[in-house]
Amino acid sequence: MAGKIADPSLAPKGEASYQWAHNHMPALISTIKKASGEGLKDRRVGVCLHVSKETSVLVIGLRSLGAEVSLCAANPLSTQDEIAAYLSTKGVHVYAWKGESASEYKESIRNVLRDEPDIVMDDGADAHAMIHQEDEFSNLRILGGTEETTTGVLRLKALEKSGILRYPVIAVNNAKTKHLFDNRYGTGQSTFDGIMRSTALLIAGKQVVVCGYGWVGRGIAARARGLGAHVIVTEIDPVKALEAHTDGFEAMPMREASLRGDFFITATGQTGVIRGEHIDKMKNGAILANAGHFDVEVDVKYLEAQSTAKKQVRPYLDEYSLPSGRVIYLLAQGRIANLVAAEGHPPEVMMMSFSNQLLSALHISKQYKVLGRRIHEVPAEIDSQVANNALEAIGVIVDNPTPEQVRYGESWN
Amino acid sequence: MAGKIADPSLAPKGEASYQWAHNHMPALISTIKKASGEGLKDRRVGVCLHVSKETSVLVIGLRSLGAEVSLCAANPLSTQDEIAAYLSTKGVHVYAWKGESASEYKESIRNVLRDEPDIVMDDGADAHAMIHQEDEFSNLRILGGTEETTTGVLRLKALEKSGILRYPVIAVNNAKTKHLFDNRYGTGQSTFDGIMRSTALLIAGKQVVVCGYGWVGRGIAARARGLGAHVIVTEIDPVKALEAHTDGFEAMPMREASLRGDFFITATGQTGVIRGEHIDKMKNGAILANAGHFDVEVDVKYLEAQSTAKKQVRPYLDEYSLPSGRVIYLLAQGRIANLVAAEGHPPEVMMMSFSNQLLSALHISKQYKVLGRRIHEVPAEIDSQVANNALEAIGVIVDNPTPEQVRYGESWN
Amino acid sequence: MAGKIADPSLAPKGEASYQWAHNHMPALISTIKKASGEGLKDRRVGVCLHVSKETSVLVIGLRSLGAEVSLCAANPLSTQDEIAAYLSTKGVHVYAWKGESASEYKESIRNVLRDEPDIVMDDGADAHAMIHQEDEFSNLRILGGTEETTTGVLRLKALEKSGILRYPVIAVNNAKTKHLFDNRYGTGQSTFDGIMRSTALLIAGKQVVVCGYGWVGRGIAARARGLGAHVIVTEIDPVKALEAHTDGFEAMPMREASLRGDFFITATGQTGVIRGEHIDKMKNGAILANAGHFDVEVDVKYLEAQSTAKKQVRPYLDEYSLPSGRVIYLLAQGRIANLVAAEGHPPEVMMMSFSNQLLSALHISKQYKVLGRRIHEVPAEIDSQVANNALEAIGVIVDNPTPEQVRYGESWN
Amino acid sequence: MAGKIADPSLAPKGEASYQWAHNHMPALISTIKKASGEGLKDRRVGVCLHVSKETSVLVIGLRSLGAEVSLCAANPLSTQDEIAAYLSTKGVHVYAWKGESASEYKESIRNVLRDEPDIVMDDGADAHAMIHQEDEFSNLRILGGTEETTTGVLRLKALEKSGILRYPVIAVNNAKTKHLFDNRYGTGQSTFDGIMRSTALLIAGKQVVVCGYGWVGRGIAARARGLGAHVIVTEIDPVKALEAHTDGFEAMPMREASLRGDFFITATGQTGVIRGEHIDKMKNGAILANAGHFDVEVDVKYLEAQSTAKKQVRPYLDEYSLPSGRVIYLLAQGRIANLVAAEGHPPEVMMMSFSNQLLSALHISKQYKVLGRRIHEVPAEIDSQVANNALEAIGVIVDNPTPEQVRYGESWN
Repeated sequence: MAGKIADPSLAPKGEASYQWAHNHMPALISTIKKASGEGLKDRRVGVCLHVSKETSVLVIGLRSLGAEVSLCAANPLSTQDEIAAYLSTKGVHVYAWKGESASEYKESIRNVLRDEPDIVMDDGADAHAMIHQEDEFSNLRILGGTEETTTGVLRLKALEKSGILRYPVIAVNNAKTKHLFDNRYGTGQSTFDGIMRSTALLIAGKQVVVCGYGWVGRGIAARARGLGAHVIVTEIDPVKALEAHTDGFEAMPMREASLRGDFFITATGQTGVIRGEHIDKMKNGAILANAGHFDVEVDVKYLEAQSTAKKQVRPYLDEYSLPSGRVIYLLAQGRIANLVAAEGHPPEVMMMSFSNQLLSALHISKQYKVLGRRIHEVPAEIDSQVANNALEAIGVIVDNPTPEQVRYGESWN
Repeated sequence: MAGKIADPSLAPKGEASYQWAHNHMPALISTIKKASGEGLKDRRVGVCLHVSKETSVLVIGLRSLGAEVSLCAANPLSTQDEIAAYLSTKGVHVYAWKGESASEYKESIRNVLRDEPDIVMDDGADAHAMIHQEDEFSNLRILGGTEETTTGVLRLKALEKSGILRYPVIAVNNAKTKHLFDNRYGTGQSTFDGIMRSTALLIAGKQVVVCGYGWVGRGIAARARGLGAHVIVTEIDPVKALEAHTDGFEAMPMREASLRGDFFITATGQTGVIRGEHIDKMKNGAILANAGHFDVEVDVKYLEAQSTAKKQVRPYLDEYSLPSGRVIYLLAQGRIANLVAAEGHPPEVMMMSFSNQLLSALHISKQYKVLGRRIHEVPAEIDSQVANNALEAIGVIVDNPTPEQVRYGESWN
Repeated sequence: MAGKIADPSLAPKGEASYQWAHNHMPALISTIKKASGEGLKDRRVGVCLHVSKETSVLVIGLRSLGAEVSLCAANPLSTQDEIAAYLSTKGVHVYAWKGESASEYKESIRNVLRDEPDIVMDDGADAHAMIHQEDEFSNLRILGGTEETTTGVLRLKALEKSGILRYPVIAVNNAKTKHLFDNRYGTGQSTFDGIMRSTALLIAGKQVVVCGYGWVGRGIAARARGLGAHVIVTEIDPVKALEAHTDGFEAMPMREASLRGDFFITATGQTGVIRGEHIDKMKNGAILANAGHFDVEVDVKYLEAQSTAKKQVRPYLDEYSLPSGRVIYLLAQGRIANLVAAEGHPPEVMMMSFSNQLLSALHISKQYKVLGRRIHEVPAEIDSQVANNALEAIGVIVDNPTPEQVRYGESWN
Repeated sequence: MAGKIADPSLAPKGEASYQWAHNHMPALISTIKKASGEGLKDRRVGVCLHVSKETSVLVIGLRSLGAEVSLCAANPLSTQDEIAAYLSTKGVHVYAWKGESASEYKESIRNVLRDEPDIVMDDGADAHAMIHQEDEFSNLRILGGTEETTTGVLRLKALEKSGILRYPVIAVNNAKTKHLFDNRYGTGQSTFDGIMRSTALLIAGKQVVVCGYGWVGRGIAARARGLGAHVIVTEIDPVKALEAHTDGFEAMPMREASLRGDFFITATGQTGVIRGEHIDKMKNGAILANAGHFDVEVDVKYLEAQSTAKKQVRPYLDEYSLPSGRVIYLLAQGRIANLVAAEGHPPEVMMMSFSNQLLSALHISKQYKVLGRRIHEVPAEIDSQVANNALEAIGVIVDNPTPEQVRYGESWN
């Protein structure tokens, strides 16, 4: 099997981890079962996702539907090496290990693309971008792609706007059964899982500054409050700031929040959210973490340039000594904290996200000829099917509208 | 002044109430000030809204921009008679009093329409429907209308679909600065205000069944939990049911919830949500309240037909004795509880809703020639202007994107 | 029947209100039933409690056990006149009406004492204090008394310390089934009930300053948060301040909180908590409310002396214009807001408080000879009996310890 | 240096860990500084506490006050080996390693006692019990002891009652600045930290059964809700059950809760709380965790005896296959989950608990001659001093009572 991984001997550990995820993703399993047949037979699927136990369940599912799968990581630090090892034993071409350098990370994506995928599943759009940027891939014929994240969808919308998008892409992120759950409840919990593993500090009573009040930010704010923190929200969007305020959080600009926070968590999808001008005002011992896809939200370069000393004080936690005598802590090098310092989203939310991925891949496989070269929303039937599979798996029952209600909903007089 | 009200002598009390609302709606006041000039000069505006202290601030604002205003109620029980009296002294044609009969309610709308409005502001779409239903108004020339509620927008969409919509209507409800605040935080609090005034019972520890998990339903569920209740949610939409479940509420069908609830609150916009089959299973002493626009969510006819006795035990609270020996309490005759048993939404949310109304009326006044005969969303500039006025009034400050962020947001590579 | 009330014709309305309370106080009803017999036969009970619908259920219960009851109010503004009227028709000597002057209030207590009670039930200890202060009552022979409030118990402890306490007093307030429920959940909800009735303002997003983090204060803080407020706590006790902080509230001194609050709610049992130095710093439009027993927590005299104008703008809400041009609102004249502006605690908590009162009265009636002249805790059996009656009424079931658990709990090795 | 540890080479890692804890326990550091001098000179202190990073700060503090310290673990699985290694380099006699057998665990305590401590600091009372049980220690002369836990205090009360207690013991657990923070906020957070590390599952939407609603149980229930769970509480105490109910949780007996739970967390201090009769009814995949001191709350023997297979599926997580085909997961072998599967309480709460320990040891050192052979509460001055040190460290400021308030608080008339 082609590929490059850290340590093949970790496969048994990876299998146990796969099994645990498998057992806690019943909606994905039922989605796979209902999709049975060979909808992906002879399809090559290039998967650029975080190499986690949940991803292994998706990948094994793709295999069971007939696909050839090549897999690389969506982040240099998020790979679980035992999962990479396990998937290698199951006929997957894996190019991923924890702690890739920036160039190794890119080369791994290239390796996936060199396997000439028909369908590209991406998380953050680095693979999609590379296909459009590098000459090597200018002749690659892609039937269609999918994208997992808000960040990636925004990039792809810019790409679409530029007029050079080469194939249809389904914005998996935008499915209700994806972003309402994964982005909100998934990141909310797992970001604090990462913070607790890395710092072991008390959250209760602390001032937690959440930068951004999108789905991710509100998930984090809710969990921060639930853990007893005092929550401050910064925003650039007036409506979201009003919502945060009315939800009982303190909404204020970063220049004020900088003075208050014990923890700072970025969730904006933007660059340069926590900058030197903010770091300079922070309290001694402030802790910075990023929950966004890319490591651009905290100005790590500023910390590196300004600090008189740097040391790792706990796993995934670096202490920067500043000239003022204060120290500032940075989690996971400013990379996505829940995946680097913990295990990413829990399987129960990924079962919905990845059901959307799998059904979107099947949709592309069947419909690529009629799908235009643009960003498509997840078809409503898919979203609805995922919701119903999840309800069934969880055991929640909804009411059926009565005939009278159907009529009432359609009438105006 | 043409009009029909309960008691003109209540005007001074109405003025005090107007003043209180005025003082707590700074964003509406600044919207009015910024709109100054005479954008509504010579316009006749027919207003079919709940005749509350907040509405009086809007109406006085419309007057200050040059409009002639005729006003009727959006619900037979929601009029505050002192407000009706006060507005009558300010040159407004008011046809509204608390406790109108069904036919009086309709006749009041007719009276407003007989004043030949150019613009119709509606709440629930009864006026819009009447214009399209009754021969008397077949020649009325309306420049455009607005609609305040989710329910009304749904009716108008059905009307639009039927192909006979006679003028453009702006769906004020759909503005972010309207439904995210008014429907959610406004109804959430004021529904419990109504329940507490009517019942004086403890909410903590009670089982509160919330029917519907739209914006209104989730506002109610959040406040129920905040008051210490154990919350159960019923839904027909799988995604909303999953959200309610993951928010930590119990999602279940009405047939199960019927057995559990101490309080039942409907917030669906649908008909026949709590039916005989549910009432028959309820605990002795269960309390039913409706937070939706129309009094169709609880099957009041069933209660009336089945009960062996009925008496009013507290203001706006009727006790129905059922043949089984159990009693069931109904709040506000099944009409919208927050407006009948309390005072409707607080002024701080209505300042945003009514800023949208006012700016939408101005927009119609200027643009009606180019607006098609369909349902329009509130223009994004209006929504944004309202948000900024509200931020300024509340004193919340947002960050400005840096030039680098602007570039980053537009790039894909 | 001796007595003085506002309006006897309100009796039917009072009966309906009594009935509503009766139906929602099942634990008190079962306590009365289980106490049946004539444990209070020939006892005269002087009751100085808020004359509310819940109190009427207690008083009727005392009557059913054979007592003669004289009743006066525990606050000049808290009497529900219809309850006073109803109880007058049931053989109770009632000296109470809403809006008593300070001297009328005192004279009403005197009238109760002139009926020569054997047992005195008090709320705030004004009756107990009067017995020890005024010559007229120096020969009154009291078998024992009870006290309902934290404030009253503190006064009685001071009285006990002074060495002149004339009879045993049971500190009903200190029963677990009283203060953990009544003070916390009861005041928490009903204070906001009063605030919403009086102001109709939005709580969500507001800065609510809670002065005092005892049982009452923490109930209010919890409800404020539950309604979406941002909560600030002031304290003099370091441990309570640490608890408030770790509960996620902002703990700060009054001098800082003064600058921040939209609402201020005092719950300390102390005097001069909100003083001129604080009022001078408050935002325009700040609203002051008191949840403590006495009207001494807000310096009302300062407001009266400093203001250039005063007017009532809503029921129980006065606006004071200050020389600086700001206005400050005072709820219920600084008196206990939940009882003046709403209806006091819900019946479901009063059923526990008053079960303790009733069983304590019976205890005194039987045991007064052996009870020393000091402050007694409610006997643990009474507390336990009330808890079990409440559990049964609510339908909550607890586990029984296994024999092995009993042994384990008693062993050390 | 006498002692037995796992791996001395871990000392540098232990030092980093000590330093991290040190930096986040400012109130303990200031307590140590203020206690400076040599209050423990020539005292031998036997410390039987969880060998965690927080404990290392206490032990180094004891050393700095002149004490000789011997240290063993309070649980066979809770030792952090790097801390044991680090403390060994600082002149501490350490007998502790992670994964001690039951007999090794006891022998380690014996080794500490063989160092003939003057003062014994215990956590769970195993050392205190051994001193009273084993002949080898019958001549040991102990000046006094302390006890950290609710469980240990209950055992010591039973020992006191038996009449054979040999020395005074200070119930550190009972200090307000200990149990209100450590037991509640500390265990609340760290138990979920342990559960998330061990299971990586979503908490939101899950049914979490909390057995016991003491300080630990209510901390866990609050965090469970804060993470989005639906919380069920079981209790044997009627008042606590009523509190849980009124806090909005579902209170029910174990026989019902058994059918509902996804997670079960015991926090009772009792034995046999989750028994075979409950396990037999649980859902497939239910997860059991214990937050109490001893591993007796879940009937692990039943699981071991009944299961047809057992395997470790994740760190500290064992899967038991039952004859019915269901699997049940047990966390940390039923031992205290936050210490075994995570790192125990955060340093910010331990700074208060251990300030009480340190000041209690100094108190014993000075006052042992006058302290009777019984269980003593922590002197109020110590509790108060700890609170003030914590306030100062956290930066929270309290109000000072005015002279008028002091007078008011002492008066009754």
